[in-house]
Amino acid sequence: MLTFIGLGLFDEYDVSVRGLDAIKSADTVFLEVYTSVLMGAPIERLEAFYGKKITPLYREDVEIHADKILDAAEFGNAVFLTAGDSMVATTHSDLRIRAADRNIPTTIIHGASITTAVCGLSGLQNYRFGKSVSVPFPYGKWFPMTPIEVISANLKENLHTLVFLDIQKDKERYMKISEAVDLLEEQARRVDAGIPLYVGIARAGSPEPTVHAGNAEEMKAFDFGSPLHILIVPATLHEIEREYLERFAGLC
Amino acid sequence: MLTFIGLGLFDEYDVSVRGLDAIKSADTVFLEVYTSVLMGAPIERLEAFYGKKITPLYREDVEIHADKILDAAEFGNAVFLTAGDSMVATTHSDLRIRAADRNIPTTIIHGASITTAVCGLSGLQNYRFGKSVSVPFPYGKWFPMTPIEVISANLKENLHTLVFLDIQKDKERYMKISEAVDLLEEQARRVDAGIPLYVGIARAGSPEPTVHAGNAEEMKAFDFGSPLHILIVPATLHEIEREYLERFAGLC
Repeated sequence: MLTFIGLGLFDEYDVSVRGLDAIKSADTVFLEVYTSVLMGAPIERLEAFYGKKITPLYREDVEIHADKILDAAEFGNAVFLTAGDSMVATTHSDLRIRAADRNIPTTIIHGASITTAVCGLSGLQNYRFGKSVSVPFPYGKWFPMTPIEVISANLKENLHTLVFLDIQKDKERYMKISEAVDLLEEQARRVDAGIPLYVGIARAGSPEPTVHAGNAEEMKAFDFGSPLHILIVPATLHEIEREYLERFAGLC
Repeated sequence: MLTFIGLGLFDEYDVSVRGLDAIKSADTVFLEVYTSVLMGAPIERLEAFYGKKITPLYREDVEIHADKILDAAEFGNAVFLTAGDSMVATTHSDLRIRAADRNIPTTIIHGASITTAVCGLSGLQNYRFGKSVSVPFPYGKWFPMTPIEVISANLKENLHTLVFLDIQKDKERYMKISEAVDLLEEQARRVDAGIPLYVGIARAGSPEPTVHAGNAEEMKAFDFGSPLHILIVPATLHEIEREYLERFAGLC
């Protein structure tokens, strides 16, 4: 039996009661540590909270040497933990398919995800978001223009864009809002586009999230504090969205 | 103090540990019962689980007579519960603004949402979804065409569409997948469009969700069981998305 469990957004208290029960009754607990991270709870904190030893999984453990996971799931009760909601990444879909290949029953226990958390924190309405996009760290001469293309297409349709910022977990390198704004402004300059307003969110799901709205200069000057950071490029604001951002995100 | 708490998808066990702690230490517990519903847990079950009396809130309690909520939050610790993630609906944004007007501190504790749960259940990748849309029950001569317009625009950009089905909570009327497919097929007929593939999901987040993929005829013939139901209209499938739907959603 293999149960995929989403741990939610920030620390050990964000898992659901259903998820916690499943972890506590598991024979083997795996934690995926390469696509996402619970910033508020290092692995030792999770182990103490669950009363269980946790096996961390790096990319090659899931994508190449998955037999360790599947063996544990075939002969016992294994849980596969990820930050956020579970099964959002393709690599986890593939693991579930390989479990089915071996006739191992699988289930999913969902967790809170940044994708909807940003709606509550910003007041920007869920149904007004278009396709989302990621901003990667540039590498040598590689400077992808996809983010500004997606943002421009969404703005043209009057849709908000959720912009994920790069996480290089192995280097403990988490893109900051100021870095992402620099990259987006450079992309916008190259295609002669403009981004009039940003909403930045830091530490979503924690007891002290930070939300701030403004233009590029304001975003770069504002201190968002420690990671994780994420950005929204809003379309034309509805009245209640504007009022919410004025109240809770310092929009002038 | 007013804390907005998302209860997750199905029953009393889907709240986060952080959320449950906040409910247990609250002076007043409100449950919003008009935009969404936990199908697996009637209010009495929640009360027994929390060890607290719950005050149900109908639309007019939140949108017109919110003082009852705000008084409780000004003079004590009040929690405002919703199914799914919290603060996704505009009416809740407005309540948070009115709390701020009275200098009442507010926080949000997030829960799992159908918006990302569908990704894990269907294997359709989160970043490939465009704007979402709702299918309302037709009323008299009112027959909105928005759903097919949004679906067609997304398909043109090769993006998936998440299609929310109408909930008329006061009448305990929950739109079924077969009803929604009938409405979408009629809309498609009127604009000479075609929807080649649907993915239907019932009881997401419950221990026994049902996921099935197929064309309109197959969807209407398939028994999805009890509500809540939701639909996805997928764009061209990536290889791993197709394999996942073949494995877990009976795609032929």
